[in-house]
Order: sequence, then structure tokens, then C-alpha cells
Amino acid sequence: MKAEIVAVGTELLLGQIVNSNAQYLSQELASLGIDVYFQTVVGDNTSRLKQAIQLAAGRADVLIFTGGLGPTQDDLTKDVVAEVLDRSLHIDRMAMDNIERFFKDRNVPMTENNRRQALSIDGATPLANETGLAVGNAIAEGGKSYILLPGPPNEMKPMFKQQVKPWIMQHVLTNESPIYSRMLKFAGIGESALETKLLDLIESQTDPTIAPYAKESEVTIRISTKANSQSAASSKLDVMEEQIASRLSEHFYANEDVPIEKTIVDMMTEQGLTVSCAESCTGGMLMQTITTIPGSATVFLGGIVCYSNAMKEKLLNVPHDLLEGENAPGAVSAETAKVLAEQVRMIVDTDFGLAVTGVAGPAYSERKPVGLVYIAISRRDGDTEVHELHLKGNRNTIRLRSTKTVLYHLWKQLKRNENQAGK
Amino acid sequence: MKAEIVAVGTELLLGQIVNSNAQYLSQELASLGIDVYFQTVVGDNTSRLKQAIQLAAGRADVLIFTGGLGPTQDDLTKDVVAEVLDRSLHIDRMAMDNIERFFKDRNVPMTENNRRQALSIDGATPLANETGLAVGNAIAEGGKSYILLPGPPNEMKPMFKQQVKPWIMQHVLTNESPIYSRMLKFAGIGESALETKLLDLIESQTDPTIAPYAKESEVTIRISTKANSQSAASSKLDVMEEQIASRLSEHFYANEDVPIEKTIVDMMTEQGLTVSCAESCTGGMLMQTITTIPGSATVFLGGIVCYSNAMKEKLLNVPHDLLEGENAPGAVSAETAKVLAEQVRMIVDTDFGLAVTGVAGPAYSERKPVGLVYIAISRRDGDTEVHELHLKGNRNTIRLRSTKTVLYHLWKQLKRNENQAGK
Repeated sequence: MKAEIVAVGTELLLGQIVNSNAQYLSQELASLGIDVYFQTVVGDNTSRLKQAIQLAAGRADVLIFTGGLGPTQDDLTKDVVAEVLDRSLHIDRMAMDNIERFFKDRNVPMTENNRRQALSIDGATPLANETGLAVGNAIAEGGKSYILLPGPPNEMKPMFKQQVKPWIMQHVLTNESPIYSRMLKFAGIGESALETKLLDLIESQTDPTIAPYAKESEVTIRISTKANSQSAASSKLDVMEEQIASRLSEHFYANEDVPIEKTIVDMMTEQGLTVSCAESCTGGMLMQTITTIPGSATVFLGGIVCYSNAMKEKLLNVPHDLLEGENAPGAVSAETAKVLAEQVRMIVDTDFGLAVTGVAGPAYSERKPVGLVYIAISRRDGDTEVHELHLKGNRNTIRLRSTKTVLYHLWKQLKRNENQAGK
Repeated sequence: MKAEIVAVGTELLLGQIVNSNAQYLSQELASLGIDVYFQTVVGDNTSRLKQAIQLAAGRADVLIFTGGLGPTQDDLTKDVVAEVLDRSLHIDRMAMDNIERFFKDRNVPMTENNRRQALSIDGATPLANETGLAVGNAIAEGGKSYILLPGPPNEMKPMFKQQVKPWIMQHVLTNESPIYSRMLKFAGIGESALETKLLDLIESQTDPTIAPYAKESEVTIRISTKANSQSAASSKLDVMEEQIASRLSEHFYANEDVPIEKTIVDMMTEQGLTVSCAESCTGGMLMQTITTIPGSATVFLGGIVCYSNAMKEKLLNVPHDLLEGENAPGAVSAETAKVLAEQVRMIVDTDFGLAVTGVAGPAYSERKPVGLVYIAISRRDGDTEVHELHLKGNRNTIRLRSTKTVLYHLWKQLKRNENQAGK
């Protein structure tokens, strides 16, 4: 089974955006056991798009298109796929209702071109767009599948996960043993260090297969096996998970594809604990990250962004002498991090108080180097843990790594709670 | 002049890495006035790579390859391009010296396969690799150019900038005018509404060309023209910018590719103003967004994430009667948003206080629907502006749109300051 990913959009050819959709879809198709032999990017141009479709249909079984479903005259994907398949287009009633409701809710008049987003190719399965307006399409014809998805990743990904995957299982992978995968997630370790610890397994193992993927500050391992039933797959995956987990117990935080903040919110809910944050250089990123998780309101109560020294004093009671003066440790110091964590925990009255203070750059401050960051975790009736970090990267990377590092150390404390409770 | 970018590497087809090289090269080629009509990704496979080369040679003048120049048996690009062009390979002496020196300096024995990285196609201009070992190649044959670059971006980019660009100017762009572009940025308006306002311009205009594209809560228009000099281009682009800006003055915030928070930080710095934030449903995202901008510390002093009602009372003095009780407006209300904005402004002592409170979902709260959000902007010696929003989308989208909407209304106030100062 071979697939080709065709991304449609002049903005890709101009380099205005990176083709992250191709990466996402390639990973997803790999997990279904479908080989991607080519990825193609083509602009908003009828004849070249037509050429790309015909070429892909000649060399792949599954054609996945992203982009070109929007309201403008440049959005051509449905028109051209319909032309190649010699089919017509019609307005999908459900999609049109969704679009009309969208404008009505906002009290904004709907411009006529928005009707284009409700177009569906005759005979296609319409794919509802839960986070946007353009309807997707899935078509099986002559042993080939044509799947049309919107370009914005926040519309494309949920549509793929919830609708395309089941459609592919039903219409494309009918005779194959399905592939069962499990994602193992690790924090506080880099990809190459993790790979080194598993090298013998990775090299010798053919079933389940082991594939590591690195994201910023997280490493994922996908273990996959073909099997005739979920339970047959599960027992094979369980054995492999156990083997990997035992080598990386300090880092292995979940056996599903969730960020560490999800695991933390779950563990704190389970343990009945609460948290608050005091942030300087991360400027709210830590709290923002925790509150991406639905249900985080149970464990996260609030916090303070103390960007200026005056606010560190006023809102978090950091002694002036700690912040300023010739021999003062300064805002970026272990001492200040400790006070911030302890104070925010007491002010918000939570079980844990987290703090981050550092130099995110691009300019240095307090004559301290970019990338020097202090994080602290204060806990009720316990010692305050402080770590000095020396991070590499640009402003955004340093802020992100600081955030993920605090979360990693909080997870370790919660894990210890769990282990102690278990004994 | 047409180019095609061919990325070679199975890791791209497995989704292990994103094709950021294609984005970089597309931008660079656009700035040289070379159109990219296709980007292709192909795996480390001789026959499919050969097919991709022949296809690209049939439809482009300039073929740029990235990847497949390394030491392993999987690295096939030079071998296959040489085969297609019916040429042989030889060891490039300079490249070989570089490789031998590398291993000698590290006191590591050089494995034999590293010699492959010094291979050069007969008749090619060798492109020295200053940050790695594999030598690049540039070949002109039969009116076509073949440029072979390494895959790692930190090797590819300097090689392109320092060696390929001059080679292209000399061998490819002997008679053409370069292209000049400008990005115009808009907030508080959707892509289709914006396009409707500019439809006559977009449809009639061929020089400069006008291309809109949308990101989440931002719209960008790129205007481009070919010209013989920067100043000739600038005057054409100025006229077009003026025309577009006059139709969209309520939304046009920058003539370079920056997010609105960058414009806000610049305007506030210029106007000598400061801001603080009180966030409920956005959980820190608003402050995190402002502080992504280097230099934001001058204008943003701090703020409070008041996720729980108790924190709204304790840290921001919201009266208990406003939050709880049978006929209380509740946490998600215009009244609460107003108090939050005014209180945080007074507590942090800033010129502006911003507040967001709403239901980001997935669960509703206070029997209010997901997507109902109140934002408020309090200003020193001025009235507090409150907006009721009805947003669509998932939790993340609602939080993002809330954030961007507050920033849009803050920008409008700053813009009014500017206009008044100008009078």
C-alpha cells in the first residue's frame, strides 16, 4: 500500500510556511503501515495541480491532499480533483449550515465566496470540519483513494484523526492485518541519549518495531505490531513496553501520546494536590502550558507573572536586598527562584509552588549569560528544590525548555508520591 | 526561470523530520526572482530518485537537491544524478583533505565509507562544506542547472548563501530583474472579508501582484514586483501599500512580517506606556504572547492568572457578590472582566490593564456556553472598554482567538493615540 501526500499552496512554494502537514501525515501513515514514497508540493495553479494529481494517481494507491479548500479563487483543490475524476461538485448541506451558523453567531454578514467552503465532490464522503469551515472529502475510485483535507494544521489534524483514519481502515486496509501502535513518552532526556540506552533493542527488534521521534523537550517512541486482534497486539506491546520502561524509569511518563502536563494534571487530580506558579522569564508560558489541559482548574489555582523586579517585590515579597545592590544575587539567582516558589505557594495556598527566573535573551541581563535559568519547586511541609539550568537556543527555545524542565521535575516529585503510596 | 526543490531522504517520508530546507530554499529563490513550481520529497531509493530527477528536469530549469550526500550506502544523490547526466564521479582532492583533517584532529580513525563524502561529479563546480564533510556540486548542462546540497540545514544554508547564490547569479540569472516583496499584516478581520474589500485590486493587478494568506487570527498580504533596483521597486510597492491601507485602516498594523504583539510592544515603547494583564480562561497565554517579543520588559511589567474564583477575590479584589450567588453575574461576565482589568492596572500600576475571562471548554461553566468570552481594557484616566465575544473552535483556538482579540483592541487604542498625537 503506497501513499503520496500532495500539499497545495503557493505560500509553501514561496517559503512563507513550512510543510508540517506532510510530516504529520507521514507519521500517521507510517503508523498505519502505509508507505509514503513521495511528498509533493504544488502551487494554486490549475494545470500544474492537475499534472500533480495525475502523476500521483499513477504511482500511489492513496492520495492525500492538504490545502486549497478555502473560500478564495485561489483555492482550487476540489475543482481540479473533481475535473480529473470527471465528477461534479455540489453544496454539502451540513457544511453550509455550519458556515451560515458561524456568521450568524458572530452577527457578521457572510460573503458569497464562503459558499465555496461547503463544496463537496459528487459521491465523496464529506468530512466535517470541527475547527474551521471548509468541508473535507474522501473518495474511493478505481482502486485509488483521494482524500482532501484543509491546509491549516488545527483543522487538518482533528479531521485526519477522527474521520480519515477510520475511513482508511474501512475502505483501504480491508484485507490487511491492522497495525497496532502505542506511543511511549519520555521527558528529561534527549533523543540520542535515549536511543543509546535502547540501541540493542532498536537494532534487533523486528516485531514490535521501535521508532523514536523527537519533539522539542520530549521524546516519543512508537512501538508497532501487526496482529489479528487488539488483545494479541496488546500482549506483544506490553512485553516491549515493560522492557523499555525498566531501562528508562526516571523518564518514562506515559504510554499514550500526551504531553507531560496532561500526566501531571491527572496525577495531581488523583493525589488531590494543587499548584501555583511564579514566572519571570517564561512570562506566563508555564501556566499557559498547564491550562491547555481540560480539567486543569481542579489542580491549578492561579499564579503571578512578575516580569519586573518591582513586581517581584510587591506581589511576591522578594526582599529588595536580594534583587538589587552590588553583592545581591539578583533576580536571576537560586535565592530568588526559591523565594518566588515559596511565596507563590503561600499566597495562592497550594501544595506546590513553581518558579522560573532566567535570561531568555536575546540580550543578557544582570551581566548573566543568555540561557542561565533557575527553576524552583516548593512543596507544603517539604524542602524547596532548586535547579540551575544552562540552556541553548533562541528566546523561544529557552523559554520552552525552562517550562518543560520545571514540569519534568514536578512529575518526578509526583511519581515519588505514587511510589511511596504504593509501598 | 523555474526551479524545483528535490529533497532526498527516507526520514522525511517517515515524518521523522520536517522539510525546513524546502522552506528556506523557496524563500531564497523567491528573493532571486526564481519561481518554484514544485517541491518534491523522495526516499533513498535509486529508481524513484531517478524518476524524480527526470521529472524535475522536464519541468524546471534549476534543480536543487538536498540530502543524500553522506557517507552511507543510503546516500545516493550524487550517484544517481551522475547516472542521469551520463557522467562519472571522482574524488575531490580539497574535500578529501578536509575529511582526513577532520578525523586526524579528533584522533579518530577514518572509516572507508567517509571517502564517499568527497565524491564530485565530473565537470561540476565543487561546493566546499564549511560546517560538515560532504562536498556539494553545481552543474550546468543543456540549459539546466543541477545543484546538489547536503541535508543538514547547518551545512546546507551557509553553502547556499556563500557559494550557490553567486553561482546562480553568474550562470543562471544573467539577464533577469530580481523580485522585491513586501508583507502587509492585518488583524481583527478574516481572510475572506479582507479579500472581498480588495477583490477588484486582486483581480486587476498584475504588477505588483497581490497574494493574501491567512494564519490563525492574522491575515497577511504579500505584494511583489520585478524591478531593476530597490528604489524602483519601493515606489511601486509604496503606491500599492497606500491603496490597500486606505481601504483597511482599521486592520492594517504593519508592513513587515511581524505578529501584532511586536507592533504593540514597539508602539508602547514609542509612546512610553506600560501594560499588565489579569487572565482567567487564557491561563497566561496573553502574557506569554506579549513576552515572546524581545524588549517587552520595557512595557509589560507583570500580571496575574486568576484561574479560580478564590484567586479573583484574593488577588484582584473582585467582590464576592459579583462572582457567587443566585443573581450574581458570575466569573464569566462583563462586570467581572471590567473589575479584573481595572484592578490589575492599579495593582501593577500600569497605563493599561487587560483582562480575559470566559469559557474555553470543552466543558461549559456557570451554565454559560463554550466560546463565551469577555475581554476588557482599562486605561489610566479613561473609560474601560469591554467586549463580549462568541468564539468557535476547540479549547486552544478559543484561547488563542481571545488573546489575539484583546491585542487587536489594544492596538486600536494605541493607534488612536498615534493619530491624536499626529493632529
